[in-house]
Amino acid sequence: MKTAVKSAEKPTTGTRERIVRATSRLLQRQGYEGTGIKQISREAEATLGSVYHFFPGGKQELAAEAIRHGDEEFAVLLRAGLGSSEDLAEAVTACTTLLARELRASDWQDGCPITSTALETVGRAPVIEQAVAEAFANWRAIVEERLRAAGIGPEDSRELAGTVISTLEGAELAAQLARSEEPLHASGRHLARLLSTYRP
Amino acid sequence: MKTAVKSAEKPTTGTRERIVRATSRLLQRQGYEGTGIKQISREAEATLGSVYHFFPGGKQELAAEAIRHGDEEFAVLLRAGLGSSEDLAEAVTACTTLLARELRASDWQDGCPITSTALETVGRAPVIEQAVAEAFANWRAIVEERLRAAGIGPEDSRELAGTVISTLEGAELAAQLARSEEPLHASGRHLARLLSTYRP
Repeated sequence: MKTAVKSAEKPTTGTRERIVRATSRLLQRQGYEGTGIKQISREAEATLGSVYHFFPGGKQELAAEAIRHGDEEFAVLLRAGLGSSEDLAEAVTACTTLLARELRASDWQDGCPITSTALETVGRAPVIEQAVAEAFANWRAIVEERLRAAGIGPEDSRELAGTVISTLEGAELAAQLARSEEPLHASGRHLARLLSTYRP
Repeated sequence: MKTAVKSAEKPTTGTRERIVRATSRLLQRQGYEGTGIKQISREAEATLGSVYHFFPGGKQELAAEAIRHGDEEFAVLLRAGLGSSEDLAEAVTACTTLLARELRASDWQDGCPITSTALETVGRAPVIEQAVAEAFANWRAIVEERLRAAGIGPEDSRELAGTVISTLEGAELAAQLARSEEPLHASGRHLARLLSTYRP
C-alpha cells in the first residue's frame, strides 16, 4: 500500500477485476515465467501503480489471486453441472458438456486456468502452491458431496472425487489440444459408467 | 547447418542428447516462454553453436524434439506397465504404480514433460503442436491395442484409450501437486474397475 497513486487514476474495484482477469488470461496462454507485471498492466489497461496498489506482493500474489479466480469459476461450473439432475450419470455428463461448450466458445484457448502456472512453480512459490491446493480441495469437496448425496459411501466418495477431478482435468487438456469436444464427452460417459457401479 | 562450429568443440551425439534432456527438464520446470536458448546451452554444457548445429529451427524445434523425447519415455513406461500382466486390471494399476514411483524418485519434479509446453503454445507453434498430437496419438494407440487384446470391442477400446490417457495425465498432475502417490493409485483402481465392466 506504499505505492503512490495519483488521484486522477485512483484504482477502482473495476480495475482490480481487470487486473485479475488479465493475469488469468496471460498465465493460461503463456505460463508463469513468460508473464511479466508490465504486460499484465498493459493488458489490464491499468497503471503499474494500480497493479502494485492491489497486489503489493507482486507477481506471486497476482498469480495466486488469478488461481483463486479460476478456482471459483470452475466451482461454479461444477455446481451447475452436478446440480442439474437428480440422476448422477446425467449430472456428471452435464459437467463435461459445460466444459466442452466453454472450451469451444473460447476457440480452444481457455482451458484449466491453473495447470500451467501450478506446474511451473512446483516447489518454488508457496503462495501459489497454497492457492492451487485450495482450488483442488474445493473442487474435490464439491464432487464428494454430490457423490455422497447419491448414496455412495464416504470413503469411496472421497477417492472417486479425486479421480473425477483428475479425469476432467486430463480430458479438458486433451480436448483443448485436439480442438475437439469428443475427449470430454467420452470421459463423461466413462465417469458416469464408473460411478454407476457404486450405486447402492 | 550453416552455423560455424570450431573443430575443437565439434558436437557429438552425446551433446545432442544432453541438449534434448536439458530442454526437456527446463520446459517441464519453467515452461516454454520462460526458457531461453542460452539457458538451454548452459544447462546442457554445450556451446550455442552446437545447439544451433543440431537444431537450426531454434527454440520451437528444440521444444518439439524434447516432446518427442518425452513421448518415447512415457511410451516405454506404458508398454512396461501394460505388458506386465495378463490380467488387465493388474496391467493398468502397474502403469499408475510405475508413474507414482518415477514421480516420487524425482522428488515430485518430473511430471508430464509435455503439458506445460503444449498449453503455452496452443495455436502458436505448429511444429510443437504436431509433436504433441503425435505423442498423444502414440500413447492412445498403445493403450487401445492392449484393450483390444483383452477382448474389448474396437469402438470401446478406442474411446477408453483416450480416457485412460486423460485420467493418467490428470492423476499425475494431482499427485505432483499434492506430493503424494495416492491420486495415481486411486485412479489406477478406478480405471481397472471401469475397464472390468467391458470385459467379454
